[in-house]
Amino acid sequence: MNIDLSLLTALRRAGSEAVSGAELAQNLGITRAAIWARVEALRALGYEITASPHGGYRLIRAPDRLHADDLLSRLGPTRVVGRTLQVFQKTTSTNDVIERMARDGVPEGAVVFAESQTRGRGRLGRGWSSPPGQGLWFSVLLRPELRPLEATQLTVAAATASARAIRDFTGLPVGVKWPNDLLLRNHKVAGILTELSAEPDRIRYLVLGIGVNVNQGASDFPADLRPRAISLRQALSASAPGGERRRRAAVAGGERPAAARPLDRSALAVLLLRELDRDYARILSGRFEAVAEEWAAFCTTLGRAVTIAIGPRLVRGRAESLDRDGALLVRTEHGLLERISGGDVRMDT
Amino acid sequence: MNIDLSLLTALRRAGSEAVSGAELAQNLGITRAAIWARVEALRALGYEITASPHGGYRLIRAPDRLHADDLLSRLGPTRVVGRTLQVFQKTTSTNDVIERMARDGVPEGAVVFAESQTRGRGRLGRGWSSPPGQGLWFSVLLRPELRPLEATQLTVAAATASARAIRDFTGLPVGVKWPNDLLLRNHKVAGILTELSAEPDRIRYLVLGIGVNVNQGASDFPADLRPRAISLRQALSASAPGGERRRRAAVAGGERPAAARPLDRSALAVLLLRELDRDYARILSGRFEAVAEEWAAFCTTLGRAVTIAIGPRLVRGRAESLDRDGALLVRTEHGLLERISGGDVRMDT
Repeated sequence: MNIDLSLLTALRRAGSEAVSGAELAQNLGITRAAIWARVEALRALGYEITASPHGGYRLIRAPDRLHADDLLSRLGPTRVVGRTLQVFQKTTSTNDVIERMARDGVPEGAVVFAESQTRGRGRLGRGWSSPPGQGLWFSVLLRPELRPLEATQLTVAAATASARAIRDFTGLPVGVKWPNDLLLRNHKVAGILTELSAEPDRIRYLVLGIGVNVNQGASDFPADLRPRAISLRQALSASAPGGERRRRAAVAGGERPAAARPLDRSALAVLLLRELDRDYARILSGRFEAVAEEWAAFCTTLGRAVTIAIGPRLVRGRAESLDRDGALLVRTEHGLLERISGGDVRMDT
Repeated sequence: MNIDLSLLTALRRAGSEAVSGAELAQNLGITRAAIWARVEALRALGYEITASPHGGYRLIRAPDRLHADDLLSRLGPTRVVGRTLQVFQKTTSTNDVIERMARDGVPEGAVVFAESQTRGRGRLGRGWSSPPGQGLWFSVLLRPELRPLEATQLTVAAATASARAIRDFTGLPVGVKWPNDLLLRNHKVAGILTELSAEPDRIRYLVLGIGVNVNQGASDFPADLRPRAISLRQALSASAPGGERRRRAAVAGGERPAAARPLDRSALAVLLLRELDRDYARILSGRFEAVAEEWAAFCTTLGRAVTIAIGPRLVRGRAESLDRDGALLVRTEHGLLERISGGDVRMDT
């Protein structure tokens, strides 16, 4: 365990209590002067840490920036997800970084966050807007012993875990649109991109890329996304008592609606990793059905009339259920049950 | 078209006729002195090219080494496979090279050969012995609009195309063992490794890696492979009139069996690429069934009692047919038809 990680873990564990420099120095096996130097370094990163000659150190507030050691200190032990964790200030796409790591033989569970992505990816070769410091853009390396056909199980697990984390974090009723979108107030708040490297009969590695819009205001989204995208902060602001009324009044008056205060991205990140770890364990132990049941409770697609574009082909029908590999079963107009493993879903009713 | 490619194409087209330096210079748009310099360079690579003051240049023999321009000059136009072609003297694995090219956005059809591979790969994470200059170790980049589930179609197409090429090249009765081995005299003469990068519902790119044992003698194979592997040259030597008898006599006398002369690897390479191009076109136009029918005629697995190891699980039964995605349908002891998309097949009868 490195020193920042140990130090932050000790300070967090103490909560509102102070921890003496002597105690920290002894537990970490370094001098009190070294403790002081690390505290100074953390302060430079924006950590608010008070120090009193007799009381000791206290962590008052962490900055709104992702810090690998801090995330690990808050995450605590997990089975797989978060075995290692890195934070990049900027990268092309966290999926790219994880892919490189996968090819270098890094074990599963590695997690990479980026404060911003220059080429964030969505499904089907589309882009994903990832402005600096306003969301959570991260990827997880998994090496499940599954066939490529079963990869959709992991998308479903990631959607379920993310929905649970976002619901628990915000208290808002989040919905899942099959296969990979999370919705709040019918707008896209998060997306999941599953990419895999495989032989025809076995997955070599799989990368779960997750993007969550956390603190963006309307003007932070590219113009073409504004009608369809939302951040957690926007959704919370609109849901606050009087929020919707305030928002409308503000818009009518030409003002920007009062925004809720920025959300703690690190806290949400930790929650997301923990829930992912839990659902990955369920998949590995063959309990996909339990995950799928929970997924179905979040799902806004099932039971609806849908039109699904699969390349040039359109399938129309009623979304009935998931099969055991996570594919969507659609009862078409002709009464046939069609198995859909991907495509663009539009809900018609 | 570059100069070596144009020059070799012109010399090959002329066959046993000589082509004058003046004619070559005019057609290639360079001086006669420059033609002379390129001829010298090709001679340095081992090309036997005669020149007479009045008759002109004639290609007598090409060296036993792969040369990208020469391969392209012999290949001629194709639909997809061989749009670009590179030859490495040594690389880790041609699949690695193609994968890097794929991630850099290189279009499909790119082909990479290596005279030797330091980390040649077989299926399921196994190795593939690729000694310098004795076989064909190459990979092809494809970007089919297919789902990962359908990737096995490409393995079947590659096996069918390779079997046809080897049969036409050697006249020997080559067999295909599902899903990816080519057999001569019940020994492995070639293998196919299909690797893909995908989202759960679409292939982003697919790499066909093909290895053919061409000119190895028994001592060129690692000891553990000797009982199971064979080269085309060995197989031809044993099949020559009296070959088997000669071989036995030689072994009994403690001598090495008389080897057939080395085969022209470039000629076989061109044949393989042409046949691959043909079967890839059939897959893209939805004619997998035609490919599968031809595959079935080569197949030594169908109709046999088999045991298939899929991870820790064993499936026993009779291999009945392929389904429309290229998976093997096995009638188990309990009368059920099981769909097998991968695994280790052992033929029991």
